[in-house]
Amino acid sequence: MPALSAALAALDDAGLRRRRRTVERIAPDSAAIRVDGRDCLDFCGNDYLGLAGDPRLAEAAGRAANASGVGARASHLVCGHQPEHAALEAELAAWTGRERTLVFSTGYQANLGLVTALAGRGTRVHEDRLNHASLIDAALLAGARLQRYAHADAVALERHLAARAGTAALVLTDGVFSMDGDVAPLPALAAACARHGALLAVDDAHGLGVLGASGRGTLEHFALGQTEVPALVGTFGKAFGTFGAFVAGPAPLIESLVQRARSYVYTTALPPPIVAATRTALALAAAEPWRRERALALAQRFRARAQAAGLRLVGSATPIQPVLIGAPDAAVNASAALLERGFFVAAIRPPTVPAGTSRLRVTLSALHREADVDALVMALADCGPQPMT
Amino acid sequence: MPALSAALAALDDAGLRRRRRTVERIAPDSAAIRVDGRDCLDFCGNDYLGLAGDPRLAEAAGRAANASGVGARASHLVCGHQPEHAALEAELAAWTGRERTLVFSTGYQANLGLVTALAGRGTRVHEDRLNHASLIDAALLAGARLQRYAHADAVALERHLAARAGTAALVLTDGVFSMDGDVAPLPALAAACARHGALLAVDDAHGLGVLGASGRGTLEHFALGQTEVPALVGTFGKAFGTFGAFVAGPAPLIESLVQRARSYVYTTALPPPIVAATRTALALAAAEPWRRERALALAQRFRARAQAAGLRLVGSATPIQPVLIGAPDAAVNASAALLERGFFVAAIRPPTVPAGTSRLRVTLSALHREADVDALVMALADCGPQPMT
Repeated sequence: MPALSAALAALDDAGLRRRRRTVERIAPDSAAIRVDGRDCLDFCGNDYLGLAGDPRLAEAAGRAANASGVGARASHLVCGHQPEHAALEAELAAWTGRERTLVFSTGYQANLGLVTALAGRGTRVHEDRLNHASLIDAALLAGARLQRYAHADAVALERHLAARAGTAALVLTDGVFSMDGDVAPLPALAAACARHGALLAVDDAHGLGVLGASGRGTLEHFALGQTEVPALVGTFGKAFGTFGAFVAGPAPLIESLVQRARSYVYTTALPPPIVAATRTALALAAAEPWRRERALALAQRFRARAQAAGLRLVGSATPIQPVLIGAPDAAVNASAALLERGFFVAAIRPPTVPAGTSRLRVTLSALHREADVDALVMALADCGPQPMT
Repeated sequence: MPALSAALAALDDAGLRRRRRTVERIAPDSAAIRVDGRDCLDFCGNDYLGLAGDPRLAEAAGRAANASGVGARASHLVCGHQPEHAALEAELAAWTGRERTLVFSTGYQANLGLVTALAGRGTRVHEDRLNHASLIDAALLAGARLQRYAHADAVALERHLAARAGTAALVLTDGVFSMDGDVAPLPALAAACARHGALLAVDDAHGLGVLGASGRGTLEHFALGQTEVPALVGTFGKAFGTFGAFVAGPAPLIESLVQRARSYVYTTALPPPIVAATRTALALAAAEPWRRERALALAQRFRARAQAAGLRLVGSATPIQPVLIGAPDAAVNASAALLERGFFVAAIRPPTVPAGTSRLRVTLSALHREADVDALVMALADCGPQPMT
């Protein structure tokens, strides 16, 4: 314990101590929240479509809780796999256009399960430098040889693949990068994988429900299918407003996960009420395209106004719109100043993002009004984040 | 993919292919289920106290869903930490008698987070050979030097600790072993750890809510506190009938997990409806001691009758009462024969349990009637599982 206390003190010295705030939802079907006793608007959650607080999801959850109970009572292979899980898997297969899908209890565990099933000690795993932590941890758990390539750089990936021709290779990338909002160059990555016999897996946690002509995510955006991207991971905790995740792909892959993925086999199945709400969310996301159109339009509005105000953005066309600040303490101060003005935007610091790129990760949602976005930009321009030179 | 298909065929050849069945709850507040179109009783879930389908949990979940929405919308450190999470953490600290607790999204991730925070590449991690898969995976992810000791053998542990004196050591054990139901010899393990300066962590997933004079688990059973066992892991998906998990311990440990445990930081917070139901379950488990008394009494009744019938049991006094069969196909056949008679007990085979110890993992719940237990024993004696010689 003394070593832990010393490590905590070092975080304080570096301005990297994280502070957890309790966030109260004032009205679930809106961005209104209360933080530290102050009423404000949530501009940092992942509820892109505004479905998390939709009363139809709450009703579906309540109905399932009354019918089946709250918990699933066991893992999927003992007796926790219920009709709600089976129905969601079938609906996801149809929606993603893939042979089969498997519902995992979390996105973190979906990635661990997928990568440990596909990669062993002899496998090279190539990952984008800005991939989500769970994809990195998955390669470490698999004991694979992990090699990271420069962010969104298919040429760098191909160089790495060519240098080690002949051994099994797995390429992992986010579809939309969670802290930057930009989109992976999937066609170029897929072509490189095809040329070198590598298997490509995409975690589209932040793209599904948002990108593509019908909201089917980054793969739809690029018109890529199961042939080019055999394994697709998605989560329910972002656009779909609930909790949990899935892997979609060829039937032998999914069946292998059922049989061998320890993060699937040795964990309690998702609660049926959460699964029922997810099924409702999937249907609503398809039936109400205005939600993603609105989130994307608000992102464009935010960008135009933020650029005019001299804020430093990154090249993102998604609802994730980080405002780069630089130093961690400056990001924390800017977040605090925004809260005073009624906007909650968490500061994101190392190690979540590279040193020198601390930021305010602004996210847009279908719940925001245009006037909210305009007011946020004015507050951002006012309170702290100066353009980096 | 061809390699995956070949591996699946090998599982078929060995009789080790797992089959996932869809289990429908007929009445949530009972053990009645429907499996493959057949009405039967659930004798293999982990709902020891019968709380998963309690209408009061469903009501709490529904109320929270209406107030806060279904999903938490973000990770704890962005904006997903809500008053329900904060309240549950405070209640768990009071209930476990520990300085602080941290709610994780799953038990698997709680173990990964705890072990990676406490163990690095130089750390020796000693684990009971029958520990839950998540504790093994946690040591692998940490890159620690993993050494497994003979099941429940404090002398073997001490020998290992003495052989490598001078390096940091972490000892991990289940409190109640999930597939055997026996209890770890915690006083002897704690004494060995104290003598060698090792840190002891206990995953009491299957003991909390069930064992101890007031249901506080294996540590209460042995009158051990935070000094002897600094880190305690518990889950909500067993006795508490919901989903998720927690770590309890000294404040610097818990704060270190907030700051550094990647499986905590980089994952979506539990849905508020699930947390609200868990708070209700915690209160009910304390207010209705008849639940654990009943589950334990039914376990004793099962043992007495099963032994009289010549069934092969293990030394367990908990609601987990495996009936040892031996060969995997014999266990599968016995499970199928039981289903014909109206009892659902999943067959547990390697690699979940050691080769040659395939079993029917019978679990008792406060929802069972004495006549159900008696009928199950008669069916078991009838259909297949012969005593091993």
